[in-house]
Amino acid sequence: MSAPYKRVALIGLGLIASSMFWAMKRSGMDCHVTGYARSEKTRNTARKLGLCDTVFDSAEEAVKDADLIVLAVPVGAMGPVMQTIAPHIKPGATVSEVGSVKRTVIDVITPHLPEGVHFVPTHPMAGTEHSGPDSGFASLFDNRWCLIVPDDDCDEDVIVRVETYWQALGANTERMDAEHHDMVCAVVSHIPHLIAYTMVGVADDLQRVSDNEVIKFSAAGFRDFTRIAASDPVMWRDVFLTNKDATIEILGRFTEELFALQRAIRTGDGEQLHAYFTHTRAIRRGILEAGQDTDAPDFGRAKVDR
Amino acid sequence: MSAPYKRVALIGLGLIASSMFWAMKRSGMDCHVTGYARSEKTRNTARKLGLCDTVFDSAEEAVKDADLIVLAVPVGAMGPVMQTIAPHIKPGATVSEVGSVKRTVIDVITPHLPEGVHFVPTHPMAGTEHSGPDSGFASLFDNRWCLIVPDDDCDEDVIVRVETYWQALGANTERMDAEHHDMVCAVVSHIPHLIAYTMVGVADDLQRVSDNEVIKFSAAGFRDFTRIAASDPVMWRDVFLTNKDATIEILGRFTEELFALQRAIRTGDGEQLHAYFTHTRAIRRGILEAGQDTDAPDFGRAKVDR
Repeated sequence: MSAPYKRVALIGLGLIASSMFWAMKRSGMDCHVTGYARSEKTRNTARKLGLCDTVFDSAEEAVKDADLIVLAVPVGAMGPVMQTIAPHIKPGATVSEVGSVKRTVIDVITPHLPEGVHFVPTHPMAGTEHSGPDSGFASLFDNRWCLIVPDDDCDEDVIVRVETYWQALGANTERMDAEHHDMVCAVVSHIPHLIAYTMVGVADDLQRVSDNEVIKFSAAGFRDFTRIAASDPVMWRDVFLTNKDATIEILGRFTEELFALQRAIRTGDGEQLHAYFTHTRAIRRGILEAGQDTDAPDFGRAKVDR
Repeated sequence: MSAPYKRVALIGLGLIASSMFWAMKRSGMDCHVTGYARSEKTRNTARKLGLCDTVFDSAEEAVKDADLIVLAVPVGAMGPVMQTIAPHIKPGATVSEVGSVKRTVIDVITPHLPEGVHFVPTHPMAGTEHSGPDSGFASLFDNRWCLIVPDDDCDEDVIVRVETYWQALGANTERMDAEHHDMVCAVVSHIPHLIAYTMVGVADDLQRVSDNEVIKFSAAGFRDFTRIAASDPVMWRDVFLTNKDATIEILGRFTEELFALQRAIRTGDGEQLHAYFTHTRAIRRGILEAGQDTDAPDFGRAKVDR
């Protein structure tokens, strides 16, 4: 296909950037991809894997002449990285980033944007519990949503080009403003991760049930929490530090609701419990109908045969 | 194989019982399986599927002459069902049940046990979010644990026979006392389910984020919660009503921990968050090493190719 960008620079070479690279190659877009990662070990792994057409030892070199620059580093590193590369970005280029939080990231990047350089924040809503340059794969974004969070005064053709690019990587795109983005993500992603981390921490910490038992009997439900609780700790630390207001608001709602269910358990209110548990089934059906999960029993973990 | 029991009665024909039937057939054990379900619709579905060698219209007929009787009904129905069938059980037979809670179930079943009938409570720690007679499959118990919770005065050879039976169905077995069982299950199963139900309820209830958005963007983490929150509402209502003490104790620990993390978010304590999130990764590794989950990215939901 004709490429929306002739030269793309990926800054940070973890799960998202490496999947972007493989998805670009799969799309057949005619495009030179440069890459940079802070750690030498990551750069060497990338070179060994053939991840990026050229891996540079500095972010400044990697962004030189790029038409699209994608910052794929933890949210807390966005500002410093942008400051470093700013003087080396060519006029007319587009800067993008793939952070999980938008308001804070926009606020730290915008002051460093050179005159004549565009900025289109994005958030591909896809991931696995794995991280690092060897964790990426071409189909990660297939049928997943990539949220596009442009400023009001961004040129329409600049935004459309970013959308075209993500669609070529397999994603669906949708525009959203930064504040709404951060609230939606608190609900569908940030708080679920925090809760999963908490549950795994509690299980590990209990003296009355051994770790060995927790692990052995995890298939009974606990297991589903551990996958997302194995996600990258630096990324998630930064998410909670930078999306504080929305996460604390949703946490408040969550504990309120949990206390109501706890009270129903204590008072033996079976009707309330049954009504609550029935209602939540409908949401699951919606997710299956929207093609965002598989209906295979147990996610296809268990082979189905009779 | 030679069958540990010549005639097995399955009372209740949902996910667990139907999987037991298919697993028995897969094992090749020479055994006649009778079945009964309270609803006529379920019995007719079972007959259509070939689920059970004979489906009876009453529990009394189904248990007649059976060597092993398995109660696979919601925990709240165990007592009444046992009372109904008690006069029809043949002397020397073994009664078993597959409920998710043990202390309460043992207390409601034991008073109805006829003289000379054995009782071996069990808990196969396996399941999917699906329920009903058509949801079962032969491999559900493969490499999963079945907890065996016999009384102190139960004959050893009676217990061993139940263990042999479950091993023939693909499960590993382990003995545990009722109180410890209920605490372990509160941690690895009951509280994770309650939390998942709560999170799904909160997401659905928020005015600021639409249901449509919750469903569309669920792949970002929320999705993992919805699977277990789609489990059978009657079963889970009964679990919480009958394992009250252990679930309230673990809930207390969970909210304590969650409040500590909430405080770290509010005060911006990145070190505490990072340390917590790093620690929980180790548990996930343990689960993979124990063979209780797959390491495929995204549980193999996304096809991996480069």
